[in-house]
Amino acid sequence: MRTGVTSLREGHSRDRSELLATEEPLEIRAGGPGQEPVRVAVTMRTPGHDFELAAGFLVTEGVVEAADIATVAYCEDPGVQHFNVVTVRTRTPFQIGSAERNFFTTSSCGICGKAALEAIEVRCDRFPAGGHIDAATIVGLPDMLRARQKIFESTGGLHAAGLFDGNGRLIAVREDVGRHNAVDKIAGLVALGTALPPDPILLVSGRLSFELVQKAAVARIPVICAVSAPSSLAATAAEALGMTAIGFLRDETFNVYTHPERIRFANAA
Amino acid sequence: MRTGVTSLREGHSRDRSELLATEEPLEIRAGGPGQEPVRVAVTMRTPGHDFELAAGFLVTEGVVEAADIATVAYCEDPGVQHFNVVTVRTRTPFQIGSAERNFFTTSSCGICGKAALEAIEVRCDRFPAGGHIDAATIVGLPDMLRARQKIFESTGGLHAAGLFDGNGRLIAVREDVGRHNAVDKIAGLVALGTALPPDPILLVSGRLSFELVQKAAVARIPVICAVSAPSSLAATAAEALGMTAIGFLRDETFNVYTHPERIRFANAA
Repeated sequence: MRTGVTSLREGHSRDRSELLATEEPLEIRAGGPGQEPVRVAVTMRTPGHDFELAAGFLVTEGVVEAADIATVAYCEDPGVQHFNVVTVRTRTPFQIGSAERNFFTTSSCGICGKAALEAIEVRCDRFPAGGHIDAATIVGLPDMLRARQKIFESTGGLHAAGLFDGNGRLIAVREDVGRHNAVDKIAGLVALGTALPPDPILLVSGRLSFELVQKAAVARIPVICAVSAPSSLAATAAEALGMTAIGFLRDETFNVYTHPERIRFANAA
Repeated sequence: MRTGVTSLREGHSRDRSELLATEEPLEIRAGGPGQEPVRVAVTMRTPGHDFELAAGFLVTEGVVEAADIATVAYCEDPGVQHFNVVTVRTRTPFQIGSAERNFFTTSSCGICGKAALEAIEVRCDRFPAGGHIDAATIVGLPDMLRARQKIFESTGGLHAAGLFDGNGRLIAVREDVGRHNAVDKIAGLVALGTALPPDPILLVSGRLSFELVQKAAVARIPVICAVSAPSSLAATAAEALGMTAIGFLRDETFNVYTHPERIRFANAA
């Protein structure tokens, strides 16, 4: 969206126009064969790659299994804004509520970081060791992501997630006003059949939260890098799942918070 | 949480320790007199100001009215991790689902930005004109927020929201791994009885989304500033509600996207 804007520069105002990143609600529905689809969630997102977003959200949140997805389609109900409603059809009967059960009943403590962690460990195998990546490869990722980001340069308003192979080759970039949505779009790409590259790496703009680690784990990406800081629970989850969590990846430097054995440093050679 | 970290600096790795921002789930429950409280939401948050977070979330999402809040308390169920469950008791019988109805049924189109906008317009009066703020006051806000941020300096992992009066005096700062949570903590402060200052201003780190504008509108704060870009729907909502939305507030510059008449520029004097 292009909009008028009053800018202050050096104490004086002037009027100009500026491009804003698009934000629109997306309703995600799911249903099995012959079932009336039900609303699972509404997310505020940047339109584009909506099927991947819907599939990625449902799979990484543990609502459906990737292998159980039969079709993904925009809504065809009469009178509905078609491109803001996506329905995921499963092969087997669909039951809502299993995601909540997974999250909340695996621990006796009611709800806590440990319960969240146990829930994700139930759903995800721990990653095996292996897959060595050069530190120099990691350092080069942010520039490649930025070079391929389509909208950020013009709006400054979008988060990005990039999927790379272990040699730093960029496989896909997805953008969104929401950080989680950008990662869901990558996870959805994988859920809908794109094979993961060898030694896959996920790079996200912004911070690294527990939920992003969880999404990468479900998508089977063992190395996750962020431009900013990880949270305590993000690091704890990555450690437990055998994932390499990297933060503050910028200006040729980075920190490895968990499983640094996957990274080959020059001084360790 | 303090954790070991392997850092890459100038091509070489070294081990050191670092402080991470705490992230833990919070379950928000609500119930009326004599009712068993029900879970409304689970949010991943940084512990601290949990009562404000729960109250602010419920009020800004349209689940309860601020005036209807009777008490806020940590869970006292035996066997429950007390500090991760907050219950808000309402004075009148509590009904879940009204928030969803508000959001989804105000437009015939099913779901779209216009429907989201109509829903918030139903809940919030348009702000009256007035309340002039000097551009120089706006420019000074980020430094004041940073100076008062307690945890960011040490972890780099927290978002902040600051409430200021129209002269740039800082009233309150709240921090969280989640941007929305930081704003909910400010909204909750107001919902639980702290009077708004004259010509209140809200400053948020990061980007300005529709949901943040919505939360500020419900908290009756007509001026919202962000360090980064607004989304299309954030600007559209601010325009419709009579709010002044400011973005890219950094390095002595900013952009006013809506209702610039509240801002006094030197060259307009």
